[in-house]
Amino acid sequence: MSTGLNFLIAALRCEIDALEELARTSELVADIGRLIHALQRERGLSNGLLASHGQRFAQRREAQIRECLACEEAVRAGFDALAADRRRHSVNGARLFSRIAWVLPGLDALPALRQRIGALAFDAAQATAAFAKLVAGLLAVVFEAADGATDPEISRRLVAMFNFMQGKEFAGQERACGAAAFGCGRSGAARQQQWLQLISSQEACFHTFAEFASPTLASRWLASQSPAQLAELERLRRIACSAPAGTALDAELSLYWFDCCTRRIDAMQEIEALLATELRELSRSRTAQARAELQAHEQLLSRWAEQAPANQADFFFGAPDLQAPAAASEGSTPPYGRHLERSILQLVQDQAQRLQAMEDELETVRTALTERKVVERAKGLLMAHRRLSEDEAHKMLRQTAMNQKRRLVEVAESVLAMAEFLPKDAAR
Amino acid sequence: MSTGLNFLIAALRCEIDALEELARTSELVADIGRLIHALQRERGLSNGLLASHGQRFAQRREAQIRECLACEEAVRAGFDALAADRRRHSVNGARLFSRIAWVLPGLDALPALRQRIGALAFDAAQATAAFAKLVAGLLAVVFEAADGATDPEISRRLVAMFNFMQGKEFAGQERACGAAAFGCGRSGAARQQQWLQLISSQEACFHTFAEFASPTLASRWLASQSPAQLAELERLRRIACSAPAGTALDAELSLYWFDCCTRRIDAMQEIEALLATELRELSRSRTAQARAELQAHEQLLSRWAEQAPANQADFFFGAPDLQAPAAASEGSTPPYGRHLERSILQLVQDQAQRLQAMEDELETVRTALTERKVVERAKGLLMAHRRLSEDEAHKMLRQTAMNQKRRLVEVAESVLAMAEFLPKDAAR
Repeated sequence: MSTGLNFLIAALRCEIDALEELARTSELVADIGRLIHALQRERGLSNGLLASHGQRFAQRREAQIRECLACEEAVRAGFDALAADRRRHSVNGARLFSRIAWVLPGLDALPALRQRIGALAFDAAQATAAFAKLVAGLLAVVFEAADGATDPEISRRLVAMFNFMQGKEFAGQERACGAAAFGCGRSGAARQQQWLQLISSQEACFHTFAEFASPTLASRWLASQSPAQLAELERLRRIACSAPAGTALDAELSLYWFDCCTRRIDAMQEIEALLATELRELSRSRTAQARAELQAHEQLLSRWAEQAPANQADFFFGAPDLQAPAAASEGSTPPYGRHLERSILQLVQDQAQRLQAMEDELETVRTALTERKVVERAKGLLMAHRRLSEDEAHKMLRQTAMNQKRRLVEVAESVLAMAEFLPKDAAR
Repeated sequence: MSTGLNFLIAALRCEIDALEELARTSELVADIGRLIHALQRERGLSNGLLASHGQRFAQRREAQIRECLACEEAVRAGFDALAADRRRHSVNGARLFSRIAWVLPGLDALPALRQRIGALAFDAAQATAAFAKLVAGLLAVVFEAADGATDPEISRRLVAMFNFMQGKEFAGQERACGAAAFGCGRSGAARQQQWLQLISSQEACFHTFAEFASPTLASRWLASQSPAQLAELERLRRIACSAPAGTALDAELSLYWFDCCTRRIDAMQEIEALLATELRELSRSRTAQARAELQAHEQLLSRWAEQAPANQADFFFGAPDLQAPAAASEGSTPPYGRHLERSILQLVQDQAQRLQAMEDELETVRTALTERKVVERAKGLLMAHRRLSEDEAHKMLRQTAMNQKRRLVEVAESVLAMAEFLPKDAAR
């Protein structure tokens, strides 16, 4: 027959299992970060190859593909390790696996994509879009990992990490967008809008990152951006984004822009590596802490098993006027037994309060992920009610945001708010 | 190497595991319901025994204790079965175990409590408080089970069940409160306040129950309350609760009141049994549905394994102008392969959307549990900052609610709102 102490220990084991799971997920997130970085470089080199009609970047691209393959292998191994762990059975696990199920066909399709690019059968825009789709799928896996984290401190770091990675991807898309604008020698209103959107999305991501990262890394990120580089970036942005439609742009600036962005993105990769290290250390120390607690509780359990239980009515039901006589009437029970019982009940109360506090804090951290969920939900609604593909639904939201000069999340909220006016029978 | 389809299947397995877990938890909830009902009867009989100075109810109480022991055995076996399942490792699992750890010492202490009552060493108020504490601990386990449910439909039913059980317990406390008031022949302001609070808490619970129960059971509940019985109950409530302080009450009404309440509470037990049956059937059908889906997917996987993968770049990256030539250039791939690939990607998208919709709905259902969490959080805050026991913190909140004629949850919200003004260093 189990005692309260058995369940106190069982609860701790649950926490330790969850922390170990989280440590594995964190490793996977770090591997995904490296793969995304490699793919972002491959995207840039592929664009260069396509833009130069195969004249440049061929060799650097080959080397980059090899690096991508190595990173991909690590990520696939991480996926398989997650699937092999039969203890994971939560619905969050289902969501994480579902995201992986979505992105794996994209990884499977990479060789064919590369072949097309090598044969110059794609244009730069198509190649960029293809890589962006794959990176978005990988980021969705990271998002789910952050959303499913059950330890508030680790959850904070994962939210910081996801936002940093997403911000970095927006920076990569901005690099491509700017390179195309300068490269073709002219700026247009649609591209300017898209560009400005990429800048504001980036800023929102880095803002959230700074809010949830450790103070050390938040200031490290600030320090990593040289003011001179930032000023140059902003000057180029201004030239391209404030030019009246149809104005000619200096095509020579294309490569300069590209290098300027690349230095910034490479600096981001260093921060990302530090984030991954911090996450790993945090996971380890949290697990070690929980293990130490478990050991202490197990020692208590063995002491508990050695002695006859004292009179338990007092200590649970706590009728104060009955405590003294009851203790006196049970001469066989050492006073230390009663003390032990009390301390166990105190431990249970402390644990319950700690778990409650963890849940409260987790809830606060997760609200940082709400915006993205609102957008996803609005997309789902549009897909169901207007029979759109995911891409079409996203474009529709983005276009509306551009036209109305509102934030994407605001448009998504409007879509959800009007949901009840949509015909019910069209819903899935 | 795993494919997307493997993870589609892995995600489904996670869901099935979670549903099976939920089925076990639901069985436990039903067992806890039966134990609580038995304890409520034992509480009533114990009060009768104590009030009659051991002259009445002794035999009926003995029989009731035997029934309690049988119910307790089932609940303990359910607890042990949960602990034996090593796959449960979520933080919700930790919270559930922590609640069980809290309530088990209470069950262990029952024999001692019964001995005291049998020896007439407790008064009726002490006995009532002790049973109420144990029932509250059991209800906290049910609450955690409802809060941790991962299937929205089952979650709705568990929320209905928890609220029904909690409402029934308030009805039981009202029975005791009224019996004491009529029994001692006078009504006082404090008892009237407490009584009115028990009525409004009950009504709030049954309101939430009706909102989340199946329409069948919600109307069954309405039908189970005979208008004549209700009118009689309300008449007795009016007599006792509107009497000016110090007015004499007809002590003869005590037993009449008790029987009137008991008929109502016994009718509740029938509804509760129906709730448990419905919950069991729902769990079974949801699990069977998920299993059927899994089987279909596994068949798809074996077809997938039999054939060479078609050109995957098109189907993931979907460049429409490249689809026709690519299909023509791969003569070895049957057209059916391409179709299969598309249908898998569609399956993944459907699954992701279904999981998203489930999460949204779950969130909506869980807000019904928020009020109780707010009260628990406020209690925790008071315990930490003012070094109160849980009982003291609860009494303080309830007293403030009575004095200010506000709802308990409103007072709790005020406490949380002022949290930042409390000294930081006093917080745990």
